[in-house]
Amino acid sequence: MITKQLLDPKSIVVVGGSDDVQKPGGKVLKNLIDNNFKGDLYVVNPKLDNVQGIKSFRDVAELPQVDLAILAIAAKFCPQTVEVLAKQKSTKAFIILSAGFHEESEEGAKLEQQIVDTINQTGGCLIGPNCIGMMNTNYAGVFTTPVPKFDPKGVDFVSGSGATAVFIMESGMPKGLTFNSVYSVGNSAQMGVEEILEYLDESFDPKTSSRVKLLYVESVNQPQKLLKHASSLIRKGCKIAAVKAGSSSAGSRAASSHTGALASSDVAVDALFRKAGIVRCSGRDELTTVASIFMHPELQGKNIAVITHAGGPAVMLTDSLSNNGLEVPAIDGPKAKELLTKLFPGSSVANPIDFLATGTAEQLGFIIDACEKDFDHIDAMAVIFGSPGLFPVYDVYDLLDQKMRECRKPIFPILPSIINVKDEIDHFIAKGRINFPDEVTFGNALSKIYYTQKPAPEKPVLPKVDEAKIRKVIDNAENGYLQPEQVQDLLDAAGIHRAGEAIVTTQTDAIESAKKLGFPVVMKVVGPVHKSDVGGASLNVKDEKTVASEFDRMIKIK
Amino acid sequence: MITKQLLDPKSIVVVGGSDDVQKPGGKVLKNLIDNNFKGDLYVVNPKLDNVQGIKSFRDVAELPQVDLAILAIAAKFCPQTVEVLAKQKSTKAFIILSAGFHEESEEGAKLEQQIVDTINQTGGCLIGPNCIGMMNTNYAGVFTTPVPKFDPKGVDFVSGSGATAVFIMESGMPKGLTFNSVYSVGNSAQMGVEEILEYLDESFDPKTSSRVKLLYVESVNQPQKLLKHASSLIRKGCKIAAVKAGSSSAGSRAASSHTGALASSDVAVDALFRKAGIVRCSGRDELTTVASIFMHPELQGKNIAVITHAGGPAVMLTDSLSNNGLEVPAIDGPKAKELLTKLFPGSSVANPIDFLATGTAEQLGFIIDACEKDFDHIDAMAVIFGSPGLFPVYDVYDLLDQKMRECRKPIFPILPSIINVKDEIDHFIAKGRINFPDEVTFGNALSKIYYTQKPAPEKPVLPKVDEAKIRKVIDNAENGYLQPEQVQDLLDAAGIHRAGEAIVTTQTDAIESAKKLGFPVVMKVVGPVHKSDVGGASLNVKDEKTVASEFDRMIKIK
Repeated sequence: MITKQLLDPKSIVVVGGSDDVQKPGGKVLKNLIDNNFKGDLYVVNPKLDNVQGIKSFRDVAELPQVDLAILAIAAKFCPQTVEVLAKQKSTKAFIILSAGFHEESEEGAKLEQQIVDTINQTGGCLIGPNCIGMMNTNYAGVFTTPVPKFDPKGVDFVSGSGATAVFIMESGMPKGLTFNSVYSVGNSAQMGVEEILEYLDESFDPKTSSRVKLLYVESVNQPQKLLKHASSLIRKGCKIAAVKAGSSSAGSRAASSHTGALASSDVAVDALFRKAGIVRCSGRDELTTVASIFMHPELQGKNIAVITHAGGPAVMLTDSLSNNGLEVPAIDGPKAKELLTKLFPGSSVANPIDFLATGTAEQLGFIIDACEKDFDHIDAMAVIFGSPGLFPVYDVYDLLDQKMRECRKPIFPILPSIINVKDEIDHFIAKGRINFPDEVTFGNALSKIYYTQKPAPEKPVLPKVDEAKIRKVIDNAENGYLQPEQVQDLLDAAGIHRAGEAIVTTQTDAIESAKKLGFPVVMKVVGPVHKSDVGGASLNVKDEKTVASEFDRMIKIK
Repeated sequence: MITKQLLDPKSIVVVGGSDDVQKPGGKVLKNLIDNNFKGDLYVVNPKLDNVQGIKSFRDVAELPQVDLAILAIAAKFCPQTVEVLAKQKSTKAFIILSAGFHEESEEGAKLEQQIVDTINQTGGCLIGPNCIGMMNTNYAGVFTTPVPKFDPKGVDFVSGSGATAVFIMESGMPKGLTFNSVYSVGNSAQMGVEEILEYLDESFDPKTSSRVKLLYVESVNQPQKLLKHASSLIRKGCKIAAVKAGSSSAGSRAASSHTGALASSDVAVDALFRKAGIVRCSGRDELTTVASIFMHPELQGKNIAVITHAGGPAVMLTDSLSNNGLEVPAIDGPKAKELLTKLFPGSSVANPIDFLATGTAEQLGFIIDACEKDFDHIDAMAVIFGSPGLFPVYDVYDLLDQKMRECRKPIFPILPSIINVKDEIDHFIAKGRINFPDEVTFGNALSKIYYTQKPAPEKPVLPKVDEAKIRKVIDNAENGYLQPEQVQDLLDAAGIHRAGEAIVTTQTDAIESAKKLGFPVVMKVVGPVHKSDVGGASLNVKDEKTVASEFDRMIKIK
């Protein structure tokens, strides 16, 4: 139900605009002016003809036709104002900042309904009431700061809480996160998180639309709608991360007191997000870190090259990645040896690739090129480069920016020296880049994203079931028990995917089968019911030698 | 083996000091000058008589007597220089910044040993080589920036890696973390992390010493020593947090390449830290957050009041605390009602205590006073107060600082608006306060600290064992089996603590026993071996009614 007047208004009126920039009506006007809204701007203020240099009308009835109205007046005056604007001024978009509606009283709820009815009758749309407003690349219709950097490829961010939206932007901006649109839905009288998502889905254009969406919600009111549009967006190539706060029972009580959220079962929310393919985050820093990763090319595999000029953070990042299921695989061979010759003595290319505190921009270039072109098993690079404060590192960060433009594999910049080389990091971010200041926060987030599954296809493809074969397996069962081979036949006949299996009776067969299935394998003795009680199960068997020795041991189990 | 000349030198010479502040020798001199070292300062430089305004000697032999020497010259020149200083200039403390020792070659290892021998002969101490140096409240003997704010109650920080020490300080400083001393041990030729810890333990003075210690290590070379002194410090009232990097096998390989760390079993490290009472962290942000919490009074219980002017972060914090085992318990009763009358309509005191976006400093004062004095079950307060950018919040942060000085219960400030009210946060930090910018990072760290056990007593007190009674129980066993009552008698006789138990045969007895033992209870049927297979076990039975119904159900089980 979003209108083009909300997204790209040719004219905006701030009803209740004033010269007091410590009040919402004054501040939202200041934001519109300061952030260069290019259309016509008006104010309605019963006492003034000019507010902050903008023409002010004493009465809303005196206004010319206007696309978008931002209301910062007492709740009781809103319905009448909306009526005039919607019916006489062709206003098709409203942002109501004022509180005092259904969140406060029954009377307020009635006012809110009256407004929604009027706007629905005239085909308009409404953000709020009781919100901080919205902003996009065309205008900053919020009464809060900061106004982040806008960018058509930046994040589309929808928040159920205004102050939280502010704090989330304050967490993302120092990292370099940019935005395409920010919606604070407030009471969601006409449009809530789900409606905005629906719009983002239905208006998605693979050529021009941003691909990163962030949500902060305390309740999921329309789970089916959320699922439909979130998964649809992800199938179109978007990435979505969300905080659904209120995951604990105490938190759920808190959320219900905050935004009137009905307690939703957290298990259900988890299942919903998983089905939709949404990366669920628990806090602001995690959310903006995940969003920052989303702004990079997608990870195509789990092998990460950790490139560093300082050992410690590389070790911590390696721990974080490997402990969460990603890999920092060894790098060796002739190409690795060749790379080593281009670095200072004492460097290591084994992965982490450590080119020492004295390492240069040129050497970083050699390393990145080798990871991009020579080390085929590497899927992405994490480059850690800070500074002990001796000299500037502009050249390194410029090289990094250049390589990020050239390389196909994702490169993640971890620049820890937010004090020593603040200027260089700002310069890097000004080029549209993002910094991950903490390597472990980054590593945890990267793993979480990698292990969030894509949504199920819209129409699930059911496996082909071979009923005749199933019948045959069942008919051949003795006493109602199935042998292991029969269980496998049964699963195959039902089209159910399974880990490969082999029943063997000789060491040679055991080794051959293990090689065929691929390491690591699990080995189990056939026969005893409580296998582990008798040592008849062995997990994570990684090589032929162990298969051989485990076979010899198990074959003796009675 | 630390000498007073290392801690509080009356004179320092920088051997290899130069005018080039992009080199270690120039930069360490600049740091000493810029940070107001109060003693005599000299330079040795073969080409200059004056370096950065400081008198320079052409040869080390020309120097007067000097307490501490900082060496920034090639490794091969170090032994001879140390020889002259130790034997002719009474130098009792050395910091060797230079690399090129045992980390590089066998020849380097020999040079290193030569230096250690000389210093040991003359009763001196050595930091390094191959380190960034050390600093404390008396001087900044490092060649890196930033130099943090020093404070006798700040953190004692010992790092096995120099660059990582820099990055950890860069993570802590924006939060407001201050330091009492920073040691970068480098090659640990004479003094490693364990020796520094030993010194901190043996010199501990309950009146003057700082109580917070942080460690960054990649290997634990002397586990017994670490355990002894870490646990001793903690028993004396200190708090210690540490990153032991290399917890994964890939990370361990990386650490071994970085600092030559021998792979230590991570399970063993975990056990060691647990036994010592060290809070183990996985990254820099977590480490400095834990340290920041350490700088507050210790949590005495798990009930936290979440005080906020914005709902969202309070919900996320509540989730983080409750999901990690702390509580955000309901607050009610007459005192709560009274507090509510002092807040704006729409506020909530149920916990989270939400005093709305319009909430004032005065109201925050009422809330904190009530939590301190009226709500006895509350152990600590987390105050969330950011800003949407409309007006300054100095008054709120000043009030917060004042209440933190007055209150006995810990108050943790969560100030998320690091952009909107940066000046106010800086002002707050300048008073010696600390900010937790992310509520979830804070909540996770607080829980981790709370659930890290204190070290075991130095001499464990073994329970009294009643051998005669044990003998009697065993003698009365039929066929080698013990009845449940006999098992209990046996445990009691051996002095082993256990959960209370009662065997009952009537519903009335079941209820009486449950009340006596205290809810919740577990109920199990006596008899069947596989109790849960027959529904004969019931967990988390919370009230008399459930005891009654479960008894009726279980008593029928055959």
